[in-house]
Amino acid sequence: MQKASISILGCGSALPTRKNFPTAQILEMRDKQFLIDCGEGTQIRMRQMGVKTNRLGHVFISHLHGDHCFGLIGLISSFGMLNRTADLHIHAQADLEILMQPQLNYFCADLPFKIIFHAINPRKNELIFEDRSVKVFSIPLKHRVPCCGFLFEEKPKDRHIIRSMIDFYKIPTWRIPKIKQGEDFETEEGEIVSNSLLTTECEPPKRFAYCSDTAYSEKIIPIIEGVDCLFHEATFMDDELVRAKNTQHSTARQAAEIAKKAKVKKLIIGHYSARYIHQNELLAEATAVFENTVLGEDLTEYEF
Amino acid sequence: MQKASISILGCGSALPTRKNFPTAQILEMRDKQFLIDCGEGTQIRMRQMGVKTNRLGHVFISHLHGDHCFGLIGLISSFGMLNRTADLHIHAQADLEILMQPQLNYFCADLPFKIIFHAINPRKNELIFEDRSVKVFSIPLKHRVPCCGFLFEEKPKDRHIIRSMIDFYKIPTWRIPKIKQGEDFETEEGEIVSNSLLTTECEPPKRFAYCSDTAYSEKIIPIIEGVDCLFHEATFMDDELVRAKNTQHSTARQAAEIAKKAKVKKLIIGHYSARYIHQNELLAEATAVFENTVLGEDLTEYEF
Repeated sequence: MQKASISILGCGSALPTRKNFPTAQILEMRDKQFLIDCGEGTQIRMRQMGVKTNRLGHVFISHLHGDHCFGLIGLISSFGMLNRTADLHIHAQADLEILMQPQLNYFCADLPFKIIFHAINPRKNELIFEDRSVKVFSIPLKHRVPCCGFLFEEKPKDRHIIRSMIDFYKIPTWRIPKIKQGEDFETEEGEIVSNSLLTTECEPPKRFAYCSDTAYSEKIIPIIEGVDCLFHEATFMDDELVRAKNTQHSTARQAAEIAKKAKVKKLIIGHYSARYIHQNELLAEATAVFENTVLGEDLTEYEF
Repeated sequence: MQKASISILGCGSALPTRKNFPTAQILEMRDKQFLIDCGEGTQIRMRQMGVKTNRLGHVFISHLHGDHCFGLIGLISSFGMLNRTADLHIHAQADLEILMQPQLNYFCADLPFKIIFHAINPRKNELIFEDRSVKVFSIPLKHRVPCCGFLFEEKPKDRHIIRSMIDFYKIPTWRIPKIKQGEDFETEEGEIVSNSLLTTECEPPKRFAYCSDTAYSEKIIPIIEGVDCLFHEATFMDDELVRAKNTQHSTARQAAEIAKKAKVKKLIIGHYSARYIHQNELLAEATAVFENTVLGEDLTEYEF
């Protein structure tokens, strides 16, 4: 089975702490890597985790607050020194390109690869990226500045072929791709062999949703319903509900409420305010509402 | 005695490693802090070292390569969130202001303090900053882009007063500052008491020189001669002399040659290429030439 996992490089909020870097995560899905947000120190965390980035082609930036994008210029600069040649696609609000271009021109002249910016509209829930095996949708969030989360969705995988049946019916190799996609097989004698005899069900496609930064917003529930794994920010605890509202962030309880209402399979919380030394209290608050909650931690990989 | 020390936040070179962040150091001198270079993750290292930055007013940037300045925007942004109110002075080549201003406008609008850029000419050895107790001079270095090091020099301190003599001669308090500066004292009876009876020598002013990034250059020797502590880059070992020359960096042996020829009291090396896992080999190469060499390490404070 192909691995799907999310590696947390940083799950602090605006002010880094001894323990938590600003926001950055790497999603592994269908043998590809997607970088989600890129706070300061992202490239350092990658080194510390031993992340190889040769399968990383796309970066998704939720919003233009520094703790979600200040690491980009250093990452790109280092990719250049490491002689990366593959294009790097950055999906972000249009302002980011305007802000970064002078820096790229100055600090990263003669990069051996192309940077391709793709403007996203954070107010829309729409398909923003698609390849052979994965789709990515934007999720409008509720924050002090325009901001969106991302829903990563695997496309249905091929059915598993039953090797012995292939041998039995002497099915030529060139027919196999279509059979994996569900086609029946017609023998030379004209006999129709049903696909269900030749293949077994594939694993259901996996879905991961990333929701940070955001105030509590039930509008996202229909979009993220039933995902295998939800990352939802939990900047504060519920006793700071007023502060959460004013700064347009969520509490751990609110993150769990969203997980529960959206019937997700697993919740990872993060983006903790620097004030919380004992982050297990955030976890306790969330698990009281939604049991399958995990405390996001820097330098940790979570499979789902 | 007042402490003088250099705290290394990062002493890696362009590519960060598990161990070394890009370049940044904090000099403590005469109860003030000076930030020298500000690579990505500087603010994170400050947190990790527990550095309080309330005595930090001036930042000095040696040159405009990313590993020496990408941490500035994050640091400034966090200072804003922490409600810093004191002005922050940035001494750097003029291009830095041009590059940073659009970012500051976008990400750091409404900072509660002023950023004041001071343009320096890296080709000149001149006084670039001076206050009541410290002078800073630029040191032209030899690198692929215009680059300068910095010489920090304490101004002479007040002489130490001998308390018992003050009592004996009943010297009024208001006379004491001048006596500390070396004046004799005239009693009411007109007797001249020589300053040497009233005070003892102060500690000699300390000097710290920072030389990174640079190829081997004997031109800096007259400027840094006899400093109490020299930080000199040692990106490579001597078997990579050709690479050092091509990239305009120094080897550990070359750093030590400079220290020896300049008769400095102590040498700290750093800015190590990511290729060196066993950095003690760099130290061994340097100590063979100049014995009082210290291997610079991240998160470490060196008194001098």
